Amino acid sequence: MANHEEFIKNCYRLATSAVQKGNHPFGALLVKDGELILTAENTVNTERDSTRHAELNLVSRAARQFPPEILSQCILYTSTEPCVMCTGAIYWVGIPVIVFGCSAEALGRITNGNFVIPCREILERMKSQIEVIGPILEEEGIEIHKHYW
Amino acid sequence: MANHEEFIKNCYRLATSAVQKGNHPFGALLVKDGELILTAENTVNTERDSTRHAELNLVSRAARQFPPEILSQCILYTSTEPCVMCTGAIYWVGIPVIVFGCSAEALGRITNGNFVIPCREILERMKSQIEVIGPILEEEGIEIHKHYW
Repeated sequence: MANHEEFIKNCYRLATSAVQKGNHPFGALLVKDGELILTAENTVNTERDSTRHAELNLVSRAARQFPPEILSQCILYTSTEPCVMCTGAIYWVGIPVIVFGCSAEALGRITNGNFVIPCREILERMKSQIEVIGPILEEEGIEIHKHYW
Repeated sequence: MANHEEFIKNCYRLATSAVQKGNHPFGALLVKDGELILTAENTVNTERDSTRHAELNLVSRAARQFPPEILSQCILYTSTEPCVMCTGAIYWVGIPVIVFGCSAEALGRITNGNFVIPCREILERMKSQIEVIGPILEEEGIEIHKHYW
């Protein structure tokens, strides 16, 4: 859990960095054997593409850089629980563990978003074996969102 | 409906073209005011990226090329009902109508895929107003999948 907290804090730093570049407050990273191997930020505004969420950016790059046998040993950390699109993307790329900071439900409360579905619900419906851990250090994530939206 | 069939046939041609290039049999296109404005194919194998489904490729390019007020007047046609990832992507980009050829359920039967969720179910759960029309000319789509998988 201590390790999870450290990587989630790193995701929150990436989320803050994304905002500094004019994007939405989301960051994600990939860990293998306890080592950080890739990071990504939300780039929705700078790329003028609403699909460029941090997790989709991360797994898209990861798929190009690492073979499936490496991806299947990775943990994906993300500042906020992945949306439907990103949950699907993580599934397709074959990453077996998701650890998130702020829950989708908490984000939905802050943004008055109706679109929120907990990723565990989607994965269960897909009969996926992906393990999901979170929320972790949620209050810190909520603060970032409250400050932004 | 006649128009829908014409555009779905075009999607099937794109799906066949994707296979000829070494990719999976999926194609999608965007229509505004009855005019075809953008097409995309699956590029999962050629880009070595499992997220590069036809619909995600299409909406990602559409978001960069067209402003939201244009996207909100478009219809997205796709050879096969969009997966969870692509349904989310279509939602984020703000395209209000999806027309599909082959159903996700039929694809799931052919590929023994457990991961299939009808896109209407996802959109309803997200309280989305996106309209979904399909299946259309499904037998033709099923033949393409049976030939490939």
